[in-house]
Amino acid sequence: VRASSAGRVILVGAGPGDPDLLTVRGVRALEAADLVLYDALVDPRVLALAPRAGRFCVGKRAGRESVAESTIIRLLLRFARRGKTVVRLKSGDPFVLGRGGEEVLACGEAGVPVEVIPGVTSAIAGPGAAGIPVTHRGVVSGFLVLSAVPNEHFERVLRTISPEDVTVVVLMALGARASIASFARSLGWPRDLPAAVVVGASTPDAWTWTGTIDTLDQSSIPLRCRDLPGLVVLGRVVGLADAVSRATKKLDESEAAWPRTQRR
Amino acid sequence: VRASSAGRVILVGAGPGDPDLLTVRGVRALEAADLVLYDALVDPRVLALAPRAGRFCVGKRAGRESVAESTIIRLLLRFARRGKTVVRLKSGDPFVLGRGGEEVLACGEAGVPVEVIPGVTSAIAGPGAAGIPVTHRGVVSGFLVLSAVPNEHFERVLRTISPEDVTVVVLMALGARASIASFARSLGWPRDLPAAVVVGASTPDAWTWTGTIDTLDQSSIPLRCRDLPGLVVLGRVVGLADAVSRATKKLDESEAAWPRTQRR
Repeated sequence: VRASSAGRVILVGAGPGDPDLLTVRGVRALEAADLVLYDALVDPRVLALAPRAGRFCVGKRAGRESVAESTIIRLLLRFARRGKTVVRLKSGDPFVLGRGGEEVLACGEAGVPVEVIPGVTSAIAGPGAAGIPVTHRGVVSGFLVLSAVPNEHFERVLRTISPEDVTVVVLMALGARASIASFARSLGWPRDLPAAVVVGASTPDAWTWTGTIDTLDQSSIPLRCRDLPGLVVLGRVVGLADAVSRATKKLDESEAAWPRTQRR
Repeated sequence: VRASSAGRVILVGAGPGDPDLLTVRGVRALEAADLVLYDALVDPRVLALAPRAGRFCVGKRAGRESVAESTIIRLLLRFARRGKTVVRLKSGDPFVLGRGGEEVLACGEAGVPVEVIPGVTSAIAGPGAAGIPVTHRGVVSGFLVLSAVPNEHFERVLRTISPEDVTVVVLMALGARASIASFARSLGWPRDLPAAVVVGASTPDAWTWTGTIDTLDQSSIPLRCRDLPGLVVLGRVVGLADAVSRATKKLDESEAAWPRTQRR
């Protein structure tokens, strides 16, 4: 498929899980790949779209060893220089907490051709799959996306904003949900502020919990979900989850209007 | 293609413009559509993916007449009840300032089957196409997305956050960029804070301006771009635009590694 013998690096956003939520261009890049370096959180069904490529997991999963970023960059450059089409596959979008910028800049400095193919971010599609629109007319017209790293930066941002003004989406938040809840309460946020935990959205093991910031630390995640990516949503839009899920459930139960991607 | 004679409504995120940035599922929904109701900002190349469908523009473009939301909902329900597969095509993602939640709830109340297919949001892919990652390690690890409606809510959110903590992306911001700049300066934000205007990202007429909040109101948009969607980015990540664009430009100039979608 390759038009030239020159190697290249393509950063591809894998979307939230379901391979049908990849972009058309992302699918083509996977089909053309010689080598795929993927994050641990990428859905295996997405990897199946690159059947002829060598596939290497390079991390990163909470609490486990992962490959250092400098090593990932070294691998990208080494194989591209050997003429390979190297896909760097990241869950969601490459520029949302994915260190995509660093990898692009490293390729640029090394003179290795690089492209970025955006993806459907879990920060929006994750809540969406659970029936939670991140914005909703008359409720909230903005949203904030943060990583759950419990540091000064995280606390400073939450301290300044009002959850009535913006929906707050915290990525990689499963381990931190109790501390997020207690920090939100310590800020005087309304204890009945709706909160959700969304795990593995758009995967077969998808699981959602909804409640309030008062009950968030009691959310108990099923064992089968503990290795899946998870996020926390705080805000009034969580209150729409039941009605939106009921509305969209009808179609899930009927036959789909178009063929799904074959599972390989 | 339809598996049953029952009508349905499918909200599809059209992505930022380039039809190759639609999801695989979004393309299939367009191919199966009897009728497409689309926003004015949807790229014509995306509409070409639904060649057999009736296609109706239902708004919404700055400063022009558009179809009322209640009328859009009435049309969605009417045609779905007649057994049609009706695609509601929205630029970006249906749940990002797109009134998707309202349309889903209306279908639910009317008992009309409805599905939501997320899309690549312009809020992330727009800056990305201009070389601006919304997050970047060591610079910023969160981002805020707002609509440019110049109201109290907008001003209150900007007043509370620090642009050093989160990247600020303001959608539908072309007409408001001078007032955004002067409001940001009135808040005491650093006058050298990098700012960008991104117009028509991922379309053939894409145009980007970068500068600071001090010079933002001098950004002059080319005539050919004035009907395209545009956004404003405020934050240190804008300073990466030159280096990231230089790095990714190399591949644009060489032959692509995979065939692009045929233009019809």
